[in-house]
Amino acid sequence: MAPQDLSCEFINVTQPYENVAVVEIDRPKKLNSFTSKMFADLGNIFKNLSYDPDVRAIVLTAAGEKAFTAGLDVTAAAQGPLLKGSETGQERDTARKAWDLRRHIKKEFQEPVSEIEKCEKPVICVMHGISYGAAIDISTCCDVRICSNDALFSVREVEIGLAADVGTLTRLPHTLVPMSWIKDICLTGRDFKAEEALRMGFVSGVYENKKAALERGLELARLIAEKSPIAVQGTKAVINYSRDHSVEDGLDYIAVWNAAMLQTKDVSDALLAGLQKNKKKPVFAKL
Amino acid sequence: MAPQDLSCEFINVTQPYENVAVVEIDRPKKLNSFTSKMFADLGNIFKNLSYDPDVRAIVLTAAGEKAFTAGLDVTAAAQGPLLKGSETGQERDTARKAWDLRRHIKKEFQEPVSEIEKCEKPVICVMHGISYGAAIDISTCCDVRICSNDALFSVREVEIGLAADVGTLTRLPHTLVPMSWIKDICLTGRDFKAEEALRMGFVSGVYENKKAALERGLELARLIAEKSPIAVQGTKAVINYSRDHSVEDGLDYIAVWNAAMLQTKDVSDALLAGLQKNKKKPVFAKL
Amino acid sequence: MAPQDLSCEFINVTQPYENVAVVEIDRPKKLNSFTSKMFADLGNIFKNLSYDPDVRAIVLTAAGEKAFTAGLDVTAAAQGPLLKGSETGQERDTARKAWDLRRHIKKEFQEPVSEIEKCEKPVICVMHGISYGAAIDISTCCDVRICSNDALFSVREVEIGLAADVGTLTRLPHTLVPMSWIKDICLTGRDFKAEEALRMGFVSGVYENKKAALERGLELARLIAEKSPIAVQGTKAVINYSRDHSVEDGLDYIAVWNAAMLQTKDVSDALLAGLQKNKKKPVFAKL
Amino acid sequence: MAPQDLSCEFINVTQPYENVAVVEIDRPKKLNSFTSKMFADLGNIFKNLSYDPDVRAIVLTAAGEKAFTAGLDVTAAAQGPLLKGSETGQERDTARKAWDLRRHIKKEFQEPVSEIEKCEKPVICVMHGISYGAAIDISTCCDVRICSNDALFSVREVEIGLAADVGTLTRLPHTLVPMSWIKDICLTGRDFKAEEALRMGFVSGVYENKKAALERGLELARLIAEKSPIAVQGTKAVINYSRDHSVEDGLDYIAVWNAAMLQTKDVSDALLAGLQKNKKKPVFAKL
Amino acid sequence: MAPQDLSCEFINVTQPYENVAVVEIDRPKKLNSFTSKMFADLGNIFKNLSYDPDVRAIVLTAAGEKAFTAGLDVTAAAQGPLLKGSETGQERDTARKAWDLRRHIKKEFQEPVSEIEKCEKPVICVMHGISYGAAIDISTCCDVRICSNDALFSVREVEIGLAADVGTLTRLPHTLVPMSWIKDICLTGRDFKAEEALRMGFVSGVYENKKAALERGLELARLIAEKSPIAVQGTKAVINYSRDHSVEDGLDYIAVWNAAMLQTKDVSDALLAGLQKNKKKPVFAKL
Amino acid sequence: MAPQDLSCEFINVTQPYENVAVVEIDRPKKLNSFTSKMFADLGNIFKNLSYDPDVRAIVLTAAGEKAFTAGLDVTAAAQGPLLKGSETGQERDTARKAWDLRRHIKKEFQEPVSEIEKCEKPVICVMHGISYGAAIDISTCCDVRICSNDALFSVREVEIGLAADVGTLTRLPHTLVPMSWIKDICLTGRDFKAEEALRMGFVSGVYENKKAALERGLELARLIAEKSPIAVQGTKAVINYSRDHSVEDGLDYIAVWNAAMLQTKDVSDALLAGLQKNKKKPVFAKL
Repeated sequence: MAPQDLSCEFINVTQPYENVAVVEIDRPKKLNSFTSKMFADLGNIFKNLSYDPDVRAIVLTAAGEKAFTAGLDVTAAAQGPLLKGSETGQERDTARKAWDLRRHIKKEFQEPVSEIEKCEKPVICVMHGISYGAAIDISTCCDVRICSNDALFSVREVEIGLAADVGTLTRLPHTLVPMSWIKDICLTGRDFKAEEALRMGFVSGVYENKKAALERGLELARLIAEKSPIAVQGTKAVINYSRDHSVEDGLDYIAVWNAAMLQTKDVSDALLAGLQKNKKKPVFAKL
Repeated sequence: MAPQDLSCEFINVTQPYENVAVVEIDRPKKLNSFTSKMFADLGNIFKNLSYDPDVRAIVLTAAGEKAFTAGLDVTAAAQGPLLKGSETGQERDTARKAWDLRRHIKKEFQEPVSEIEKCEKPVICVMHGISYGAAIDISTCCDVRICSNDALFSVREVEIGLAADVGTLTRLPHTLVPMSWIKDICLTGRDFKAEEALRMGFVSGVYENKKAALERGLELARLIAEKSPIAVQGTKAVINYSRDHSVEDGLDYIAVWNAAMLQTKDVSDALLAGLQKNKKKPVFAKL
Repeated sequence: MAPQDLSCEFINVTQPYENVAVVEIDRPKKLNSFTSKMFADLGNIFKNLSYDPDVRAIVLTAAGEKAFTAGLDVTAAAQGPLLKGSETGQERDTARKAWDLRRHIKKEFQEPVSEIEKCEKPVICVMHGISYGAAIDISTCCDVRICSNDALFSVREVEIGLAADVGTLTRLPHTLVPMSWIKDICLTGRDFKAEEALRMGFVSGVYENKKAALERGLELARLIAEKSPIAVQGTKAVINYSRDHSVEDGLDYIAVWNAAMLQTKDVSDALLAGLQKNKKKPVFAKL
Repeated sequence: MAPQDLSCEFINVTQPYENVAVVEIDRPKKLNSFTSKMFADLGNIFKNLSYDPDVRAIVLTAAGEKAFTAGLDVTAAAQGPLLKGSETGQERDTARKAWDLRRHIKKEFQEPVSEIEKCEKPVICVMHGISYGAAIDISTCCDVRICSNDALFSVREVEIGLAADVGTLTRLPHTLVPMSWIKDICLTGRDFKAEEALRMGFVSGVYENKKAALERGLELARLIAEKSPIAVQGTKAVINYSRDHSVEDGLDYIAVWNAAMLQTKDVSDALLAGLQKNKKKPVFAKL
Repeated sequence: MAPQDLSCEFINVTQPYENVAVVEIDRPKKLNSFTSKMFADLGNIFKNLSYDPDVRAIVLTAAGEKAFTAGLDVTAAAQGPLLKGSETGQERDTARKAWDLRRHIKKEFQEPVSEIEKCEKPVICVMHGISYGAAIDISTCCDVRICSNDALFSVREVEIGLAADVGTLTRLPHTLVPMSWIKDICLTGRDFKAEEALRMGFVSGVYENKKAALERGLELARLIAEKSPIAVQGTKAVINYSRDHSVEDGLDYIAVWNAAMLQTKDVSDALLAGLQKNKKKPVFAKL
Repeated sequence: MAPQDLSCEFINVTQPYENVAVVEIDRPKKLNSFTSKMFADLGNIFKNLSYDPDVRAIVLTAAGEKAFTAGLDVTAAAQGPLLKGSETGQERDTARKAWDLRRHIKKEFQEPVSEIEKCEKPVICVMHGISYGAAIDISTCCDVRICSNDALFSVREVEIGLAADVGTLTRLPHTLVPMSWIKDICLTGRDFKAEEALRMGFVSGVYENKKAALERGLELARLIAEKSPIAVQGTKAVINYSRDHSVEDGLDYIAVWNAAMLQTKDVSDALLAGLQKNKKKPVFAKL
C-alpha cells in the first residue's frame, strides 16, 4: 500500500519526497483533538509505514496554525468508558470495571500510540501551537522532537484528575531530560513554552514558525532518507534497546545485530564512495 | 497526628496553607548540619506525612540565611562509628566491623533519607546558601529541586575520604542530569553555584534570594495541592516506577494502576468542570 | 611497569605530575585515525593503568592541532574483515561470516575500548578539532569529557552504512544527554560543534583552544589525584553501578562497598585534617 | 464470537462445558504438523478467547492418536523464506535478507505463539504421542502441561541446523526445570519420554493414555472455571509478572493489582460461603 | 532483648540451644490461623532476631498437632478492610478505597511477612498438618522448608476469590520449583501432600511426624549455628541477591562483599583447624 | 593451536574423537585440588577451545578414581593473600586490603572459571568421587552435569569460614534446582551423594562408575559434535541469554540472532537430508 493510501478521515499521509512520508493530524476545527478512532488510525498508519520499503523517514505534523493537538477530545471521552468508569455502575462490580479499564487503556490508547515507537523508520515530530496531553504521549514515542516558537506544551492529565496513562509518565524519564523538571511539569500540569522545552532538552530545535519548523523536519527526514536504511534503522533499533538495558547488554546486542548487518553491500558502497572522494551519493537498495 | 505535632528539636513542621506542609531544618547555628538523630527524625516526619490525609504537597526548607545544610555534623560523627570504624579496634575483627558499618549505613542514614523519596506526597526542596553533602543526599530524594541565587553546592564526601553512601552517588544518575558533569562534581568535590545547577538541570528554578525561592516553592506546592490527590500521587508513584523500569514495564504498570484510579469521582468532577467552563475549582476528597 | 613504559607506536603515555598519567593518541599525520592495532594498544594501556598504584587520575588527549581522531582508519579497514564481510565469499557461508564478525566486533573493537570504562582510575577526555566516530566511542567510556572551542564532533558511522557498534549507540543514552538530540546526531551523522556539545551536556566544559582545554584537564586530574584514592575510585565504581541499576539496588551496593572502605585510615586523616583547619593536605597511601 | 465460531481448517474450537473451551489441532494425517497459516490461526484463536467472557479456562489438545504435533511442516517450510533465506539470492543482500528473516520470525512465528501466553485465561496443554519442535514452543506458553504415557518429546531444531527461535530456548529456562537437563535436551535434540518429562518437572502429570490425559485436563479446566475469574486470571497475570521480575517488584505489583481487584463482590461471596459452610458453590459474574 | 522476651500472645520465642532460636506460632485452637496483629508480631520478632548476636539460626514451627496454620483468620478478616473493601461504601470512592487497600496489603501483610526473608539469620521452616494460605506466604520467605508426613498444603486464596497478595504468587517462582506445578496449585487451589511437595522441591525433606521434622529442623539449625556467622549470613545474603540478578551482577556483588568479609579471623581459624586435623571445633565470635 | 598443545602441568587436553576435546584435571595425588595457577591454566584452556574450529563439544573430567576435585588447595591458599588478608597487616589498611582482595577474587578466581561458561562450545562436566568446593564452582559453569555413582558433593566454603565467592552462590540459583535445597547445602556445607544430586536436578545423569559416566559424557559430546555448529553454539548462547533476561527480551534476542544464522547452508543441508530420508549424515563446515 502506498503511503498516501493510508490517509483516513482525520489523518493525512503524503510522500512529498522520495523515501519520506509525512503524517498530518488533520482535525484543526477541534484543535486536532483525538478521538479513540483517531488513535487507532494513527497506530495503524505507523504499523504500515514500518513495513513500507519506499519510506525511510517520517515527519509527524498537524494541520492548521493553532494546535498540534489539544489532546484527548474531552466531549467524546465524556461519553466513553473512561468517564463511565467513575460512575456507580450497577451491572459490573469494581474489579470487573477495573479489568475493562485496564484492557481499554492498553488496547485503545497505549497499543496504537506505541506503534509510533515500534515503527522501524525514524520519526521526526514537528509540533506547533497548543501541544497538550496526547501531544506529549505521542511525541515521546518519536525519535526527534522539534517545534515552532509558538508551541505551548502541557502534561494536561493531572488537571482532569488522572495520572497520564498513554505513555507520558513512562516515557518522559526515558527522554533523558532532567527529572526535577519532569516532576515539575507532570505534577503541576502547567504550560511551558518552546524556549523552556529546548533548554530542558525535550525538543532539540525551535524554529520561528510552523512553516520553518516543518521545513527543518523535512530537511532532517531527507538527510536521513539518503543514508543506508540498514544503517539508519539499525541505529534506531539499537539506541532504543540500549535505553532500557545495561551497557554490557547493549554492547552484546549491537554485536549480534551487526553480525548480519555489516554484511550489507551498503558498507562497501558508502565506504568506497568516501574513499574515492566520490561526488555521487551512493544509492542504497530498498529495505 | 497533625503535621505541626511532628516538630522536634531541630526540625519544624508547619502547615501554612490548606493541604501544604512545610518541613524546616532548624539548626542554623551549626549551619543546619545533621546529627544521626536529625536523620532519624527527618525520616520519621516524612513517614508520617506520607499518610496524612490533610497534606497533599510538602516543601522542604531550612532555617537561617547561611545554609540549607553544611552536611553531616563532622564533630559529632568523629565520635561515632564511622570514624571509630577506621581505628584498629581490638574486640571486633574487620569483617564484624564491616557488618556493623553496613547495618549502620542502611539503618542510620539510608533508610531515614529514603523515607523522603517513599513519601506518597510530592516534595519540593528549596535550597539556599551552603548546600553540601547531605544536601545532595536529601534533595535527590525530593521530586522538585529549586534554589536561591546564593546557593552553593558540593558533593563533599570525596573531600573526607569516602564515597558518598547516603544516596548521592546512587540517585544523581537517576536525576537525569549529564553524566560527565555528575562525575566531575562527585570526583572533585568542587563547589558549584546555583547558575551551574540550573544549567545542568540539577535544579529546575533559581530565584533571587531565599525568600523568593521559598515563595515559589510554596506556590508550586499550593498549585499541586489544589489538584486531585489521586492524580498527583499517582503521577509521582508512576514516574518513580518508570525511572527504574523499561518502557514496556512502565506502560503495563500505569495500566494496572489506573484500572482502579480512573474509577475516582475526581475524573468526572474535573472533566465536567473543564467542559462547563466552570470557574469554580473542583474540591477533591481527602486521600 | 611505569606509565611511560606503556608507550607504543602511536600512543604515548607520560606522567607529568605525581599520580597523574597522560595518554596521548599520536598519529597526527593521519588525523589520529585508528587502526585495529591502535585499539588493542589503547585497551592494553588502560588495563595496565587500572592497576598502577602510582596513577590516580588519567587524562586522554591527542597529538597535533587538527584532530582528536578522525575515527577508524578507513583505508586500513577497507582491507580488513569489515569490508570483506560484505563481499560474496566462497569459503564461508553467511552465518559463519556473521559468527566471525560478531567475534571481531567484540574482541577487536568493543573489548579494548571498554577497558577505558573498566579502568579503576577516573579518566578525563580532552578533545579538540575533528572528533569523529571512534572519538565518540572512546569519549563515552571516559568519566569526564571536556573540549576546546574548535572541536567538531560527529557520529560518523551512519555515513558509511552501518550502525555504530563500538559503544556509541549503547553508551550515549547512558551519558544522560537528551534522547531527542542523541537520535538527531546518530541518525543524521551531522557535525556538531563544541558549543552544542556543551549545551546538550555531552561535554561539561569548553575552553578557548586545545592548550587551555588540556590545562583544565590536567588541573582536574591533579585535583582528583590529591584526594583519597579509596574515595575517588569508590566514587567512580559506585556511580557506574548505579547507572545500570535501580535506586534500591544502588543503595544496597554502596552499603556493602563502604562496609570495607570506611575502615580506611583516609577517612580519619581527612576528617581530622578538616576539623583542625589543618593547612597541610593529607597524604594518602597508595591503593 | 462464540468459541466454536473460531474453528478453522486445521484447528477446532469447542466448548464442552460451561466456561471451558477446548482448542484442538486437527491435521492428524500430517501428524498435526504446522504450516505458517496454522500458527497465525492458532494465535488468532487465543487472542479471541482471551476476551471471551464465556471462557474461563482452556484446554489445548490435538486430534488423532499418533501425535500432538510433529512440529513445523518441513515440506511446506522448505518452500518458504526460511530455506530460501539460506540460498545465495541475487536481489537482496545478506543484511536485507537478515532484516526480512527477523521480521518473519517475529511476525509469522513468535507473535502468534505468544498469544497463547498472553491469553488472560489459564491454558492447560494436554500432549500425547509425537510432541516435537513446535510442541515445545507451544506448550511452554501454556500454564499447565500434562501428557499421556506415550508422549515423546524432542527439541527438534538442532537436528535441522538451527537454534530454536519460536520460544523454546527462551521459555524453557522460565519453566524452572533443571538447567543441566534443558541444555542436554536442547543441545542433543534427543527424544525424551513422558516419565522423564514428569521427573524433570516439564509436565506436572502423566496419564495412562490420551483419553485419560484429556479427561484430567478437562477436569482441571472445570475446577479452575468454577472459581472467581477475578481470582484466577489475576493469579495467572501476577505469576507471569513475578517470573520476570525481582521479589521486591513482584510484591509491589500484586499490591497495586489487588487495590482494585479486592473490591470485587467475589471475595465476600466466596468468603461468606466458606464461613457459612455453604454447600452451594458461589456463582461468579462474567469477567 | 533476649529472644525469649520477644514472645507475645500467640507467638512463642525460645532458645533451646546456643545460638538457635525457635519461633512457634501458638494459637492451636484456631488452627494457628492469623490475625492482622499476629502478622505484625511475627514481623517484629524476626526484625529483632535479625540483629540479635546470640542467634545464628532460627527454626519456625507451630503449636499443636493439627496445623502449621490454616491461613488468614477468615472470621476476623471478614470484619476488616479486606471485605469491607468490596462493599459499596458511601464515604470513600473506588480509587480512594483502592489506595487504602494497597497501603493495607503492603503495611499489614507484605511488610511484616517480608521481615522473615530480610532476617539476616537463616530460617528453617518446619511445617505439619494443615498448611494453607499464609503457610505458603510465610514458608516461601524462609531459607529451608521441611515438613512432617501429614503436612497438607494449599494455595488457598483462589478459593476465596482473590489472587494471593502476601507473597505466594511472587515468591513461588523464585523458589525454583517447576512452573507447570506452580500454576497448577495456584490456579486450582487444590490440596497437595508432603510427598508431592518433596517431589516438586517445594520442601527439601519430609519426616515421619511433627516431632521428627522438628528434630531435623533443630539439627539443621544447630549445624548452621556452629559455623562462622560471617560465612553463614554472607551465604544467605549473596544467594538472595543472586536470585534476583544476572550471573554477571552476582559475581561482582560477592567480590565486593568478600572484600571485607574475607578479612575475618574466622577464615584462618577454620582453615587452620582443618589443616591441623584439629578435633576441636573453632569458636567464632558474635556477629 | 591444536587442543592437545594446550595441556599444561596439571591439566591435560586431548581430542579422542573428531571435533570433541577432553579436558582432564590431573593432580590425583592431591585429590585434584586447585592452586591459583591451575585456575589460570583452566581458564586459558577454555578461552582457547572457545575459538578452535576443530572443537565442537568439550568433556571436562579429572584423573584418578578418588576425586573430581577436593577444591582449593588449602595448604597453598594458606600462604596466599586469602589468609594473609585476615592477619593484622601493618603496611596496608583495611580498605586497601579489601581493594586487593576484590581484585584477587575477580582476577585469580572468578575470571578464569567464568571462561568455562563463556566458552562458545558446549561443555559436559563428568564428576566422580570427591567433588567439593571448586567442583561446584566449576561444574555450574558447564552446560551439562553428569556423574558416577560414587560422586560426593559439598559446597565446602561455609566450613572454612567464608561465603563461596568463585561462582557457587551466584550460579546455583541459575541452575534452576529447588531453592530450599540450595540453601540447605550452602548453609550447612553438608555432603550430598549422586542420587540426591540427580533427584534435585543438579546433575542430569548418574552412571555406575567413573568409566561409565565418562563414556556417557563422550557419547553426549559426540552426538552434539555431529550437529551443525551454528545450531549448537547458537542454542548455548541463546539459552544463556534467556536465563538472565525476561521472556520478551529473550524472544527479541533470538530473532536478531537467527536473522544471520538462518542464512547458513546448514539449515538447507540438514532439512533436505531429513526430507530425503537420507541415510548419510550431513557434514557441516567448520565454524
